[in-house]
Amino acid sequence: MDVKAAVAHAAGQPLTIETVQLEGPKAGEVLVELKATGICHTDAYTLSGKDPEGLFPAVLGHEGAGIVVEVGPDVSSVKPGDHVIPLYTPECRNCEYCLSQKTNLCQAIRSTQGKGLMPDGTSRFSLDGEPLYHYMGTSTFANYTVLPEIAVAKIREDAPFDKVCYIGCGVTTGVGAVVNTAKVEPGSNVIVFGLGGIGLNVIQGCRMVGANMIVGVDINPAKRPLAEKFGMTHFVNPQEIDGDLVPYLVELTKGGADYTFECIGNVNIMRQALESCHKGWGESVVIGVAEGGKEIATRPFQLVTGRVWRGSAFGGARGRTDVPKIVDWYMDGKINIDDLITHTMPLEKINHGFDLMQEGKSIRSVVLY
Amino acid sequence: MDVKAAVAHAAGQPLTIETVQLEGPKAGEVLVELKATGICHTDAYTLSGKDPEGLFPAVLGHEGAGIVVEVGPDVSSVKPGDHVIPLYTPECRNCEYCLSQKTNLCQAIRSTQGKGLMPDGTSRFSLDGEPLYHYMGTSTFANYTVLPEIAVAKIREDAPFDKVCYIGCGVTTGVGAVVNTAKVEPGSNVIVFGLGGIGLNVIQGCRMVGANMIVGVDINPAKRPLAEKFGMTHFVNPQEIDGDLVPYLVELTKGGADYTFECIGNVNIMRQALESCHKGWGESVVIGVAEGGKEIATRPFQLVTGRVWRGSAFGGARGRTDVPKIVDWYMDGKINIDDLITHTMPLEKINHGFDLMQEGKSIRSVVLY
Repeated sequence: MDVKAAVAHAAGQPLTIETVQLEGPKAGEVLVELKATGICHTDAYTLSGKDPEGLFPAVLGHEGAGIVVEVGPDVSSVKPGDHVIPLYTPECRNCEYCLSQKTNLCQAIRSTQGKGLMPDGTSRFSLDGEPLYHYMGTSTFANYTVLPEIAVAKIREDAPFDKVCYIGCGVTTGVGAVVNTAKVEPGSNVIVFGLGGIGLNVIQGCRMVGANMIVGVDINPAKRPLAEKFGMTHFVNPQEIDGDLVPYLVELTKGGADYTFECIGNVNIMRQALESCHKGWGESVVIGVAEGGKEIATRPFQLVTGRVWRGSAFGGARGRTDVPKIVDWYMDGKINIDDLITHTMPLEKINHGFDLMQEGKSIRSVVLY
Repeated sequence: MDVKAAVAHAAGQPLTIETVQLEGPKAGEVLVELKATGICHTDAYTLSGKDPEGLFPAVLGHEGAGIVVEVGPDVSSVKPGDHVIPLYTPECRNCEYCLSQKTNLCQAIRSTQGKGLMPDGTSRFSLDGEPLYHYMGTSTFANYTVLPEIAVAKIREDAPFDKVCYIGCGVTTGVGAVVNTAKVEPGSNVIVFGLGGIGLNVIQGCRMVGANMIVGVDINPAKRPLAEKFGMTHFVNPQEIDGDLVPYLVELTKGGADYTFECIGNVNIMRQALESCHKGWGESVVIGVAEGGKEIATRPFQLVTGRVWRGSAFGGARGRTDVPKIVDWYMDGKINIDDLITHTMPLEKINHGFDLMQEGKSIRSVVLY
């Protein structure tokens, strides 16, 4: 079938809107009509050419929501008409990783997904007979996409696509890091480094679970009002304090934070986040993605005296199980997505959405199909 | 009262055996007649002068066992005749740290302990009227010592002092890191870096809790037989393998270890220990104490893909609660201490015990009073 897609032909070039060909779903696959997709920094990172695993030409996009329109053979968990969110981290429930009950990093289709292909080793997208690569197993910058059954989360039908698409990446990454990875308890003191989209979602996750102090750290004071709306109780601008940041934060939190979250991708701030943790039990969660080759460092004494360093990918969420719960939290008013979606646009304007993100003018732009 | 002590007069000098004066216990304190004490690397580290917090002149020693002979006012948990192990990590059960239920690092008397003094800010030891510093709150290199009540673990009376003294540090540090810090589950694959006294105790802790593969890593092949006796299932000599150690260990453990333990104090090996962990859930525990100023480093991707970096001090054991349990495990034959105590000697020969340790000829030397 012909579908409309924003195609990434080469690194560093704008996307081009084209009619491409999409094959129907094979065994274990579903065809989804996308209704909305967010534009995320990860898309821009790959498009820039800095992602060493980036493949071109490709259909990018990984933060979508839509409706199943057709299922291939052997698909049992969803049917045409179901509302779904595509999952770049699938949940097969059968691999060693899923069965460990210790991680959300299902590896069932990892090798083909990393190669821009469906699990059978081929692409469903093509342009004039030449294959286009899939991206993160999702390729949501097209009005239709084909997905493995294990890579769709079935969600309630009253949830608005233009909002819950953001649960496909950013919301889950932030809220999930609090709920699934750190398991923040009520009354905890937390510090969130970086008040972009991920940081705001961490903040509202901490508020939802009843944290006490929710300290936000950012060098941009313009981030403060929205962060406060999302639950931040204390704002710290590293450029406005006397002395070093870590001792300042340790004093502010009366000994250090129970949990800290790095939402930037800066290895120096990852160290500050660890060292701002409370002696004895503070845990620091790395969420931000650092540049290739960069390393984190600290004195091992930080660990021996009880601090813990961990990371979180896709908020530690098992997509098919946890994403529908986060949709419920949004529908119940426990988390706010509306204020994070600052811009919407048709697919034809998608490059404008990238520009807004790069210029820091948007929190999240959403393409509406 | 006059007591016999090995006094550390200055950094880098041998201990001298002298008759020193010991004041009786004040409120909340107990007088203990020591029956045995181990000689540990930490004593040697301080005696060498490399410990920036080392104080002289002092009575060193922190791995003892003995009998309460007198209690000061307001002591309720022990009485004369009770058998006890001194605790360099006390357990007050009332401070923020004890009450957190997340750490064993009781801070009730930390500031005075770090200054070589009892909680009231004075020393009980003196020589010719000049005070001698306490060490780690224990000072077991004397046939009598005074301890805070919160720094003694009451143990069963049938346990032999010359063996269970080792539970005062090394055994608990190793076995406890497995049981309390990592919480290794039955069937886990583990890697232990360094097969000295701590490493052997980690190994037997892993065996006790039912680990599957217990891989030992050491450049000294002479360590192999005893490590196998303690439960090691696979031995890896980094100097005898082709290629890099980390991929070798990841392949050996079919994806990486569930838990790894660094028992050396080398920051490069701490990195290898982390990176030998299984993607998704592997946890690495730093036990070894690195040289001052040294830092650990890794790519944050290691954490974001699910590995966890933590540390352990005194095996995560709450001394008064957990040390008596470890004594039981020894008495029940669940752990082996006898084979680790390779030498015994009277206090007069204590410098020989230090020599044996420095030359790598002993696992543990124990002084018998």
